[in-house]
Amino acid sequence: MRLTRYTDYCLRVLMYLGVKGDELATIKEIAERYDISKNHLMKVAYELNRLGYIETIRGKNGGMHLRLAPEQINLGRLVRDTESDLAIVECFATNGHCSITPSCVLKDVLGEALDAFFSVLSQYTLHDLLGPKHDLGLLLGVQQREVRQPHQLR
Amino acid sequence: MRLTRYTDYCLRVLMYLGVKGDELATIKEIAERYDISKNHLMKVAYELNRLGYIETIRGKNGGMHLRLAPEQINLGRLVRDTESDLAIVECFATNGHCSITPSCVLKDVLGEALDAFFSVLSQYTLHDLLGPKHDLGLLLGVQQREVRQPHQLR
Repeated sequence: MRLTRYTDYCLRVLMYLGVKGDELATIKEIAERYDISKNHLMKVAYELNRLGYIETIRGKNGGMHLRLAPEQINLGRLVRDTESDLAIVECFATNGHCSITPSCVLKDVLGEALDAFFSVLSQYTLHDLLGPKHDLGLLLGVQQREVRQPHQLR
Repeated sequence: MRLTRYTDYCLRVLMYLGVKGDELATIKEIAERYDISKNHLMKVAYELNRLGYIETIRGKNGGMHLRLAPEQINLGRLVRDTESDLAIVECFATNGHCSITPSCVLKDVLGEALDAFFSVLSQYTLHDLLGPKHDLGLLLGVQQREVRQPHQLR
């Protein structure tokens, strides 16, 4: 059982932008700091922009930053947004054809377990992930000002 | 996010055997009733036997049945046994190389969510999935005796 690499990268990009604060970040820079593919990140940035989590600014000095304050980015909502396939087993999918679906209790049990998973995630925001911001900044090679206010909603 | 097809099939096989009770079931029969591949089921039966959930009897009139009573087959334990990959994101894997792992709170949050998922599953046993046993028997084409005692531990 695992989240898609796409969701994993979405979370990492948002954490990077959260550490970076108001400054714009580029795909090239994020790809280097996490040692992951630029091509994957381009898709991630496109989707995060489309979903309203980040703002992308084009041009030579362009880049991206968070569109929302970290406190406003709920992890349960985010993972539901980015995990395209929440059909944990076949019968959850619209094209499932398991023969016992009409009387199957397993579907209810797995649905309850999935709700519990998201219920935990929903208790956290991106802000909670930025607790050790100074350490994250060091690991990601992001220089930070001494005092940084949370990014405000634009 | 989804469970592997292998886990899905393990659950289905155990449900089938639970409905069938003391009578032996063959791979061919289970494959037909669920309309799934015999080859996949052979691997599933091999592993369920290895893990101690079922007993396989060889020979012309051979087949398989549950080795444990349905009440003794805990779904949390079962899914942990059958999901080989519980590395929900890269940093959970032993070969993960995410650069922020040393200071990452996300790992803790996802670990807590995964625990909540399994905590729900652990509240149920195979017996709970067999509640609508009569209906499942009809859907699976399994004839049942009027009175059936839970299978006992051998």
